[in-house]
Amino acid sequence: MTTAVYDELARHWSRLHRFAHVHAMASWDRAAMMPRKGSEARAQALAEMDALLHGLRTEPRLVDMIARAEQEPLDDAQRANLREIRRSWTGANALPAPLVERLSLATSRCQHAWEKQRPAGDWAGFVVNLREVVRLVREEAKCLGDATGAAPYDALMDEYEPGMTSAEVERVFGELQSWLPALLHAARERQAGETTTPARGPFAKEAQRALSLEVMKLLGFDFEAGRLDESAHPFNGGVPEDTRLTTRYSTDDFVRSLFGTIHETGHARYEQNLPRELLGQPVARARSMAIHESQSLAFEMQLARHPGFVATIAPLLARHFGAQPAFDAANLQRLVTRVEPGRIRVDADEISYPAHVILRFGIERRLVAGEIEADDIPALWNEGMATLLGVDTRGDFTDGCMQDVHWSAGLFGYFPCYTLGAMYAAQWFAAIRRATPDLDERIAAGDLAPVFDWLRQNIWLPASRWPTAELATRASGEALNPLHFRRHLETRYLGRATV
Amino acid sequence: MTTAVYDELARHWSRLHRFAHVHAMASWDRAAMMPRKGSEARAQALAEMDALLHGLRTEPRLVDMIARAEQEPLDDAQRANLREIRRSWTGANALPAPLVERLSLATSRCQHAWEKQRPAGDWAGFVVNLREVVRLVREEAKCLGDATGAAPYDALMDEYEPGMTSAEVERVFGELQSWLPALLHAARERQAGETTTPARGPFAKEAQRALSLEVMKLLGFDFEAGRLDESAHPFNGGVPEDTRLTTRYSTDDFVRSLFGTIHETGHARYEQNLPRELLGQPVARARSMAIHESQSLAFEMQLARHPGFVATIAPLLARHFGAQPAFDAANLQRLVTRVEPGRIRVDADEISYPAHVILRFGIERRLVAGEIEADDIPALWNEGMATLLGVDTRGDFTDGCMQDVHWSAGLFGYFPCYTLGAMYAAQWFAAIRRATPDLDERIAAGDLAPVFDWLRQNIWLPASRWPTAELATRASGEALNPLHFRRHLETRYLGRATV
Repeated sequence: MTTAVYDELARHWSRLHRFAHVHAMASWDRAAMMPRKGSEARAQALAEMDALLHGLRTEPRLVDMIARAEQEPLDDAQRANLREIRRSWTGANALPAPLVERLSLATSRCQHAWEKQRPAGDWAGFVVNLREVVRLVREEAKCLGDATGAAPYDALMDEYEPGMTSAEVERVFGELQSWLPALLHAARERQAGETTTPARGPFAKEAQRALSLEVMKLLGFDFEAGRLDESAHPFNGGVPEDTRLTTRYSTDDFVRSLFGTIHETGHARYEQNLPRELLGQPVARARSMAIHESQSLAFEMQLARHPGFVATIAPLLARHFGAQPAFDAANLQRLVTRVEPGRIRVDADEISYPAHVILRFGIERRLVAGEIEADDIPALWNEGMATLLGVDTRGDFTDGCMQDVHWSAGLFGYFPCYTLGAMYAAQWFAAIRRATPDLDERIAAGDLAPVFDWLRQNIWLPASRWPTAELATRASGEALNPLHFRRHLETRYLGRATV
Repeated sequence: MTTAVYDELARHWSRLHRFAHVHAMASWDRAAMMPRKGSEARAQALAEMDALLHGLRTEPRLVDMIARAEQEPLDDAQRANLREIRRSWTGANALPAPLVERLSLATSRCQHAWEKQRPAGDWAGFVVNLREVVRLVREEAKCLGDATGAAPYDALMDEYEPGMTSAEVERVFGELQSWLPALLHAARERQAGETTTPARGPFAKEAQRALSLEVMKLLGFDFEAGRLDESAHPFNGGVPEDTRLTTRYSTDDFVRSLFGTIHETGHARYEQNLPRELLGQPVARARSMAIHESQSLAFEMQLARHPGFVATIAPLLARHFGAQPAFDAANLQRLVTRVEPGRIRVDADEISYPAHVILRFGIERRLVAGEIEADDIPALWNEGMATLLGVDTRGDFTDGCMQDVHWSAGLFGYFPCYTLGAMYAAQWFAAIRRATPDLDERIAAGDLAPVFDWLRQNIWLPASRWPTAELATRASGEALNPLHFRRHLETRYLGRATV
């Protein structure tokens, strides 16, 4: 027996990878480079590429080929790849083409309008479009569920986080909820007596860019295989062979851009270090969005807010912006670990962040299930923000329930990945610490190799070789365990772990 | 009768246009943005797009559809479009796929090696690859000739300059040759008594970029529909809806980059002003490469070296680089119209430039015909440069017969377009002058509208509506006539026209 059918499938997915390459670059260009009047032609060109990719992913011959390849004498890596090929095929084939098109139109319209409605706080205008998106997302969830056997919301989440269920998310979020409010309170009490000196701007854009590039270099970003540019909404794009990060600079605040760039650098190093020999095959893709977020948060939260790393970059700030009292290492550490619940998720500290996600998860799960409607969101939002974080958002749509792009873009089921990622990141660092007992000293000495080597061996190179739970177990000895996140937060914010 | 088949063809070519869009952007990105290690993946992605485009251009059903559409009741614009569709189809279908692939590989290899062999002057290494390129180009020329009924070299030239023949090129180049050497001699005699003050560098890159952007604005470049960036080999890329120029800055010379940018801006304005309502259809494409070069040279030679325009930009130079005696308008005019035969085509003044093209045309025509071999090039080159320009290139391959990328890239038949373009540019300016008798005063007053309005109406908007000779006749009352080029050169360099 040969692997002829498998080989043919692999060639098909290599071809998809190459078409996806030009799609990714044209998308990055649209956000980072394209002048205004190119918009219409670009939208048409990308839609044509979307249609091409969809056609290739749903070629009728594939279903039979996948079944035949499953009978071939494959090795473990090939079998893992075939599993991912089937998953990719199932996702692409679950949705009827007219639904895909209606979803694409409705989310484009909703997101486009949101860009102006959000600053204006125009909920009444926004909800008109959102109702239609919700209606179509429910259809989408049903189709995906029919194809995979999962419940509707779980089927949506499966696109981002394969194998995860809402029951499991509820379990771990419930566990978080049992200790997070007390921890938040204790951390704030502890910080109440601290004095921190704020950094004084303005911080020139060019200096911020130079600083970002220097820190990316410290973090091992390969500038021969990627770039840093600017866009209105920072993201990590491109392809594994050529990773394109974007950021946005504000002259009155360097922290957001610097730590945003560090976050994206975590995503980028994952992409840049996926296994080369299989590149283009589904098995060589990033495992899932929670695992992806675990890389960005390992960089942004675990590493970049580590006192040893903060002390490393403090002199760089002075060099790029000029010396000022705020850049004293201990003061800088207090600045970047300040706990203060607020309205905005992306600006949240790492203790209050999960509450933002728990709120959204609760709302979107019920929306997809049909238990609530889009019109119910503002009341539930205000109630949730008050209960979970003690923050009053009444009357504020802009920085309230309209702050995120996700729902307008039809991305239901994504939010949990952020907090799952934060928990995985803590779990990885616990494992790294076991493997390198003097980790704190190594980081303080500027030696980040123990972190990068561990991530490369345990996360980056395995890519999608194993289902997520197995990846986590092979890497750290156990599946997702929120205990490590709790230990991390207690150690950093209370000075010692209680568990 | 309906135009159903024609409409279906038009949709097919719109689809091609959209795929060509992402191809164009990924190609521009490769030259202007891509980091080194992205090269291999990008080459594969572009090759996959090439294969897709080739497949769409050669779909077997098209031949019958084109024949049927020709029987439909089309209006004039549709009929012109169908003519161009047939031309596009014929070109794409003339070459067997294996030949296309072998050409692509051989020219990639030859060009890639040339990038290192040229600076090293390694002719012996270069000719090994070039022999193979020549062999394949002869095959290509034969296939194209079989499909179009043209002689081999003419068939190659037809890809760039439809309707032009080598007999016609020989006729007009012969006419040039009858008066150009005497004119060159007379211009140099006249300039021998002049004193010019050279500009003193260094010229900061940032200042050069700011100056380029300002001059592009003067020239009407639409920055909402295009960009200026940097690349090793300047070019005009992107799509009509989003035109991407590149340039290269050298701190010891601002003239090359500034006038290079002006040249590319001429190409860009043509692209940016092609007829919108037909964009994506072959009839809305630039007419030919000679017409394209006539736009860049209308900008670079006719307009940008006009004393009125030079006087307009002289104060800008002082503002961007600081004042210096060289930036006196009269001195600057002498600097940018200095006649001095040299080895390098792209640096040549407008009187000696045609000799560079005549030399290359003579060699490549005989190469394609099989009258000479690649190994014969150096001797013919040295002889031609001595005879035509009195320049000794013996022993210098780098700035001799290895200076151009064209032959290594398989672009045989392109060179004549440069000088045909220079002649057309002079012909257009003669027509503009007839329509606007006070043209010199208008240009001196900074009012370039008479130039742009004429080009828009007569060249840009007609696009490929008519064959080139008809386009020229409708625009200027006659087909290509070298007399206007002679008059222009005599007026500018001798002070008065003798014809």
